[in-house]
Amino acid sequence: MGEILSAGSIEGVVRKDVPERVISRLPIYLQTVETIAATGQTTVSSETLATRSGVSPSILRKDLSQLGRPGRRGVGYSCQDLAATLRSFLGLDRAQNVAIIGAGRLGSALADYAGFRGRGLRLSAIFDIDAAKIGTTIGSLTVTDLAELAAWDEDIDLVVMAVPASAAPAAAAIAADAGVRGILNFAPTVLETPDTVRVRQVDLASELQVLAYYSALDSHAGTSEEHSN
Amino acid sequence: MGEILSAGSIEGVVRKDVPERVISRLPIYLQTVETIAATGQTTVSSETLATRSGVSPSILRKDLSQLGRPGRRGVGYSCQDLAATLRSFLGLDRAQNVAIIGAGRLGSALADYAGFRGRGLRLSAIFDIDAAKIGTTIGSLTVTDLAELAAWDEDIDLVVMAVPASAAPAAAAIAADAGVRGILNFAPTVLETPDTVRVRQVDLASELQVLAYYSALDSHAGTSEEHSN
Repeated sequence: MGEILSAGSIEGVVRKDVPERVISRLPIYLQTVETIAATGQTTVSSETLATRSGVSPSILRKDLSQLGRPGRRGVGYSCQDLAATLRSFLGLDRAQNVAIIGAGRLGSALADYAGFRGRGLRLSAIFDIDAAKIGTTIGSLTVTDLAELAAWDEDIDLVVMAVPASAAPAAAAIAADAGVRGILNFAPTVLETPDTVRVRQVDLASELQVLAYYSALDSHAGTSEEHSN
Repeated sequence: MGEILSAGSIEGVVRKDVPERVISRLPIYLQTVETIAATGQTTVSSETLATRSGVSPSILRKDLSQLGRPGRRGVGYSCQDLAATLRSFLGLDRAQNVAIIGAGRLGSALADYAGFRGRGLRLSAIFDIDAAKIGTTIGSLTVTDLAELAAWDEDIDLVVMAVPASAAPAAAAIAADAGVRGILNFAPTVLETPDTVRVRQVDLASELQVLAYYSALDSHAGTSEEHSN
């Protein structure tokens, strides 16, 4: 077997060894360094990059050293090089084709979502199964019958699932059959997919419950202080 | 200072010592155990609970032992007790009042979102600054002027921020002044808030970029196999 120097292998790093919690932070570093570069700055210290990404400098340095980018003491990181490394590592060298499944309120809102722009993601299609929605337009996209996903002109890499929980499993099966590699799931249900399809759950209730924890914690801290005074 | 046995202290566990990555998994365990309990099952093994929550049994056991719930070998967890412990620990003993800021497409879709139901969250209000939207109804809620948030009848615990990036900082400042403790931020911008307000960012582009990584990884694995055959 020859040495492979494709997107799968960067400076000798075996990508499989990088844990998901590290991978999850890389898009944040990428966005931070791109924001900094956009102001005309050419280098950035690990301290600045860490603070603006919401992590500690030691976590940032550890994460980036796993990508073979240890940074240089007193110099920091070249913004351009680091952004290129992160984009390449994340497989964003070419834009990922994204489709939304579900043209209801949430799907329509997501089609409009400004946060996708300039992030290596290309919103290519929006699908639904409702005859009343098929053929209508949302932004620049025409809602298409979900049955046409498999025969779609461009390969769809990633899907945003914005259908009710009851419709999600069937839609996920169609996406998996069509060769989709990842699903960002807004439906409040756990999706079972083949190993070829990675699912990330966006569970808004869970996110709010985590905030509830800290809210209660702070209330308690207040109470505790009153007791001790 | 007396011993405090409020929501802030559970079986001698100091809540502050539990790391955020553990806290982030607790809502998932809660949902899983509630789903299992709803089928009439009274106990659950750590293996089942772990698999259905998408974590390894050793992580689950470690997480729950931090809550003083080590589980019992060969018996597992009582569904009812574990759910009560998780709810109490997360501060969900009483429903958290949630408001949405932003009555545009995304805010309207979120007001409709079925995933909040039965999760200890009470959608209390939806605010906007646009005179054309104020007074209109979304589901059972009337869109209210954001200026009225501070004087709102019920204390708002948590806010879902569904406004454009440019409007988010001002809206966050209003929420912080009104005593809101947590913000779930959909706006694609980093919010600076006082220490009393915790922010969790829902960055859909970052989520998709993490999926892009695994998509590229799998493509590479395929290529690599071809090389070695």
